[in-house]
Amino acid sequence: MSDGLSYADAGVDLDAAERTKEGLRELVASTSDRFTLSELGHFGGLYQVPDDVDQPVLVSSADGVGTKLKLAFAMGRHDTVGQCLVNHCVNDILVQGARPLFFLDYLATGEMDEVVVQEVVRGVAIACRENRCALLGGETAQMPDFYAAQEYDLAGFIVGVVARDRIIDGSAIGVGNVLVALASSGLHTNGYTLARKIVFDVMGLGVDDELSGTGRSVGDELLTVHRSYLNVMSEPLKAGVVLGLAHITGGGIPGNLPRVLPEGLGAAVDRSLWEVPAVFRTLQDAGHVAREEMDRVFNMGVGMIVVVDPSHVQTIVDAAGSVGVETWTIGTIEEGTGVSYL
Amino acid sequence: MSDGLSYADAGVDLDAAERTKEGLRELVASTSDRFTLSELGHFGGLYQVPDDVDQPVLVSSADGVGTKLKLAFAMGRHDTVGQCLVNHCVNDILVQGARPLFFLDYLATGEMDEVVVQEVVRGVAIACRENRCALLGGETAQMPDFYAAQEYDLAGFIVGVVARDRIIDGSAIGVGNVLVALASSGLHTNGYTLARKIVFDVMGLGVDDELSGTGRSVGDELLTVHRSYLNVMSEPLKAGVVLGLAHITGGGIPGNLPRVLPEGLGAAVDRSLWEVPAVFRTLQDAGHVAREEMDRVFNMGVGMIVVVDPSHVQTIVDAAGSVGVETWTIGTIEEGTGVSYL
Repeated sequence: MSDGLSYADAGVDLDAAERTKEGLRELVASTSDRFTLSELGHFGGLYQVPDDVDQPVLVSSADGVGTKLKLAFAMGRHDTVGQCLVNHCVNDILVQGARPLFFLDYLATGEMDEVVVQEVVRGVAIACRENRCALLGGETAQMPDFYAAQEYDLAGFIVGVVARDRIIDGSAIGVGNVLVALASSGLHTNGYTLARKIVFDVMGLGVDDELSGTGRSVGDELLTVHRSYLNVMSEPLKAGVVLGLAHITGGGIPGNLPRVLPEGLGAAVDRSLWEVPAVFRTLQDAGHVAREEMDRVFNMGVGMIVVVDPSHVQTIVDAAGSVGVETWTIGTIEEGTGVSYL
Repeated sequence: MSDGLSYADAGVDLDAAERTKEGLRELVASTSDRFTLSELGHFGGLYQVPDDVDQPVLVSSADGVGTKLKLAFAMGRHDTVGQCLVNHCVNDILVQGARPLFFLDYLATGEMDEVVVQEVVRGVAIACRENRCALLGGETAQMPDFYAAQEYDLAGFIVGVVARDRIIDGSAIGVGNVLVALASSGLHTNGYTLARKIVFDVMGLGVDDELSGTGRSVGDELLTVHRSYLNVMSEPLKAGVVLGLAHITGGGIPGNLPRVLPEGLGAAVDRSLWEVPAVFRTLQDAGHVAREEMDRVFNMGVGMIVVVDPSHVQTIVDAAGSVGVETWTIGTIEEGTGVSYL
């Protein structure tokens, strides 16, 4: 039978998969909390529903990192994309008032490179710890005819919890409420297909070249970790002053803010009230991208928008300031629909 | 600005994404139950923790379809892989005694083909309904430099629930317990990289050619939907007769059954007690694959193994028979470690 085919011949190495899994055991364990009832190796991860939440509602979201991964490949730096992914997911459930409970990742790769997998999952675990979220499980798939040897796709799933009467659904938003913008850390995880085209094809830059205006290299600027707003929003959410929250991802402010506004209400945003960071201005100029297109593809410096009564603006500003996040009051809620820019 | 770059120029069509999402609304709604508090379009999906479970423990798992997707591409048939994915995830939490609550999918594609996305998600929704599981959300990512236009990767994530004192963890398994095997429907979702190599490269077949011994075409045989064992196991789990459950996925019986056995116990499996289905025999013969390798890569006709006291074998046989699933008693629990074959 020595001339027979094996799984390894076909490109799938079960032993490498097993070794890789063992290498992740400690990383996963580092994120456990008192509700985590399982360890790596079970078919499913076990998590006890916390008993301190009245009428608990689970809030869940799935997301990927998109083509930001291409930057990680080009830089050979694999410990940040997992942080982006977790923080993105945390923000997506935070906007409904939920705090994270646990996270699972899906990592698909052409060839099981133990070091790369370890680095990716290390990033996931770092962000899980920062967001007080258990890394409850995940899947690492070897798909040799799908992905190049040193490439991978990465997706994640989060489950959080909120008391039923504390769900933020935007229904309390009214005319005269104001929009407090929380600064993003950069592109976060959206618009990378366009950004890469501009930076690499139009500008002809490499990852180590300086990205004009940013004082940083292309790689450093574009790999900047997507910011989590959990620490900014925890206290304001507890205080009950938050009327609406929008995570500014693909679609930008016009694509995301209206998702939380009640029927018949729109938002007026004054572009002069915050300074768009250099990375976006450089991309816009170099790519000759229309401002409307920029607004729809990128966050333009605003990672999250908090809708509050004018009397509660300072609560948000203080909460953000305490963790070093810049804020701007960028507009108001008006009768109408969608987002209109001044 | 008419010469400027747009996101669409770079290969990402936000309008197509929006249309595609609208097309999924009805599919998602068809899976809702009384605990589903959100509809498509929220940042996160909302699901109330059912109040009929004492000390509820959430059980969660992530998985992909692997290179079985290549068969779907070759056949141009996209409505089955989503069913495979959901059923796989359902089985992964079923083995700990959990019933499904909700599911989220991650679909990443090179180009947003609305019909293909619709078909994939239709498959997901079909299986969600069959498994009484809400399709709570998901992510459809356009990644033009990652995936070919007509190709995609598909991953999923499930959350189920079990009462804390009904968790199946294998700790009650003892010497003399028996192994009841539940028939698989085919390869399920494992071993496709090897199977494809044998069928297409070694045997030189196309998807429409007959796969020797199976009486079916290569495509029909290899795309057969991964079987869910929820309907088989629901009543035996309620009756409390199940001591251990192993989902036979990558790693086969030797890789999965020991995961549920207590320290110091092994399993003796008698290969003569069930007939390995034709698809596996054909793959083994054509690829000259060693039997040990076959056992580690494929399920060999056994999709799940139930560990019970001999007095409860009939309960499992009857439950399986009532939904048309074949069973065989294939071995026993003994002192030792791992799986030994007779």
